[in-house]
Amino acid sequence: MKSKWKWLFLPTLLLFLSACNLTDQNATDSEPTEGSDENLQSNSTVVSRNQLGDDFYRPALDEDGQYQTSKNRGVTLSLNSGINISLFEKDLMRLSQDTFSTETHFIQEGQYLSKDLVNSWLARESEDNPEGLNPPESGEGDDRVPRYLNSILEFDFFTESEENLQLSGISIGLALNTVDYYQAEQFGPTLMQEIPSEEALSKGKDIANQLLSQIRKVEGLENTPIMIGLYEQSPQDDLAGGVYVAQGNSLNGSESIDDWVSINERRIIFPLEGSDSAEGNAFANFQSEVESFFPNISGITGRAHYINDQLDSLSINIMTQFYGEGEMVAYTQYLKQSATTYLPGDMNVEIIVESPEDIQAFLKKDITESDYFSYVFD
Amino acid sequence: MKSKWKWLFLPTLLLFLSACNLTDQNATDSEPTEGSDENLQSNSTVVSRNQLGDDFYRPALDEDGQYQTSKNRGVTLSLNSGINISLFEKDLMRLSQDTFSTETHFIQEGQYLSKDLVNSWLARESEDNPEGLNPPESGEGDDRVPRYLNSILEFDFFTESEENLQLSGISIGLALNTVDYYQAEQFGPTLMQEIPSEEALSKGKDIANQLLSQIRKVEGLENTPIMIGLYEQSPQDDLAGGVYVAQGNSLNGSESIDDWVSINERRIIFPLEGSDSAEGNAFANFQSEVESFFPNISGITGRAHYINDQLDSLSINIMTQFYGEGEMVAYTQYLKQSATTYLPGDMNVEIIVESPEDIQAFLKKDITESDYFSYVFD
Repeated sequence: MKSKWKWLFLPTLLLFLSACNLTDQNATDSEPTEGSDENLQSNSTVVSRNQLGDDFYRPALDEDGQYQTSKNRGVTLSLNSGINISLFEKDLMRLSQDTFSTETHFIQEGQYLSKDLVNSWLARESEDNPEGLNPPESGEGDDRVPRYLNSILEFDFFTESEENLQLSGISIGLALNTVDYYQAEQFGPTLMQEIPSEEALSKGKDIANQLLSQIRKVEGLENTPIMIGLYEQSPQDDLAGGVYVAQGNSLNGSESIDDWVSINERRIIFPLEGSDSAEGNAFANFQSEVESFFPNISGITGRAHYINDQLDSLSINIMTQFYGEGEMVAYTQYLKQSATTYLPGDMNVEIIVESPEDIQAFLKKDITESDYFSYVFD
Repeated sequence: MKSKWKWLFLPTLLLFLSACNLTDQNATDSEPTEGSDENLQSNSTVVSRNQLGDDFYRPALDEDGQYQTSKNRGVTLSLNSGINISLFEKDLMRLSQDTFSTETHFIQEGQYLSKDLVNSWLARESEDNPEGLNPPESGEGDDRVPRYLNSILEFDFFTESEENLQLSGISIGLALNTVDYYQAEQFGPTLMQEIPSEEALSKGKDIANQLLSQIRKVEGLENTPIMIGLYEQSPQDDLAGGVYVAQGNSLNGSESIDDWVSINERRIIFPLEGSDSAEGNAFANFQSEVESFFPNISGITGRAHYINDQLDSLSINIMTQFYGEGEMVAYTQYLKQSATTYLPGDMNVEIIVESPEDIQAFLKKDITESDYFSYVFD
């Protein structure tokens, strides 16, 4: 496996690595790169640290220059909604950074856990499937034992060693149900069984330990550092999406996680929820300002993400009919002005304007920035 | 009409105007706004010049805070393609800036020329329709007299005067055919008649003068400064889109344009065209680098826009299948690196990654910037 990963000798990558050492660690995103003026009139060949982004992993490529797609992602399609599929994956990448630094690690989609293996883990335990991580079928109605585990996701992390990239850790996301959707009989109606958060978390930790002892049997993963995150997925009708509730590390080939770290995050939808908070009110003011601009703004919602009880980011979606280029430019200018006026400055904001056919415009401001970036699509 | 436009006493707008006078005219986009640090932790109420954008008009709103949508845009839907619809409008806004500065003017979608009026102008001249700007029906086959004028677009520009916004100019775009698509008989096949560029331009200038004498009869436009741009639309099968080829001004109620200014622009598609140029080669290198990343990149094209024989901007479109969040983050990082390495730095670049369903990722770099902005959509 190891020899398959060949360091790519792109001049840019080498320059990038040397540039790393020279870059002031305290430099902020908004600071212009040194020497950027000189580069304007010629091809840039130096890739600065900022250009690759501090918060993202560089991709590990195989010797054909290709990026390997995930061996097991297909199974996450059983999650409750598109927003859960996206957040389950996006948040796992973010949590992985605590354990596997983006400065030194390259990322690869899961290549160690095969789809068959993952599917056998996701199924209920049975005579035919002793590895199943969900409890055996038992009981009916209120007495039914639910499926706690919905999906498994794997990311692999590499560091460089001489000419090769070497596996130095993997991250595993476990998506837990707080509602188990099931059919009591084939072609029957879909029934719902609620699972209290505490129960999901406690079962999730048990499942993580069972899973670990099985992962340690996979060739190449016997002693690899493993980070496991427990994701509580939101129900099918919840647009806000779920959050990771705990994470833990297994080092030195250990088959259990002894120290779980609780994660305090939540996601809610404005204006449905959060109307009693200062930021919920700010959103309501923004909303009433921008929804009167055109006669046909059909919906404005915000997905708020709280980390440690602080509003970290707000994703605003605006549905309109299709408008012309000039109208959309004007609206985007107006959104920029209204967002700057009404929304708190100390958070990340993104605003997407969509027609039923396509994306129309996009605005974004990071917490460290004072100005909105905006773009109107053709 | 005039009294309908009420200056909106938003505190932000007033602050914006006073800020204008204080802003250093030589400040570049990349310079941080003064005092931006202090704003990070509180609601920003000062809208800086940079935030509203130097190159965009502020929208004129009616007294209900609504933006009036165009009275005549519907007719541009008869243009040959979506890209023509978009560029006909976008470029007219850009050309208008030479005559009506974005610093002092507010924009409004066309409200003076009604749809009926515009449709009568677009039709052929006839006994029933003496105002028709296209020549009377005549001849067949090679002797047929084509329709030269395809579409008309109007933008209105206002300046502030005491409490009102006052009309201070309008821009008119005339879309000219270089191919006239027609049916010789009802339900018959669509036939094509080519029109040489020189002929289209010359007829376009005649049509502009005829149109001017009619516009001067419209109430409120008797003495308004009028800018007219002639747009040569690209054929149906041309993905590059058309360009404006000439513009001229009519001042003091004049019924003709005496001084036309030629516009030297062109749009071509990489890699189909432009392979003999340095920038075409740069694109080809970029393309071969990024199309091998995933097994299923189905198409990479670039729309190059030349102004005065210099490549001004390149819009790159990449079609993929749907990929997961992690894969798209990795690909976006790779695109950023490859674009910085292979594409010339002295132009505007935008890159859109699309799956058949939706936009996946977006990258952009202005000519004045050294780093790419990038964003991966959920």
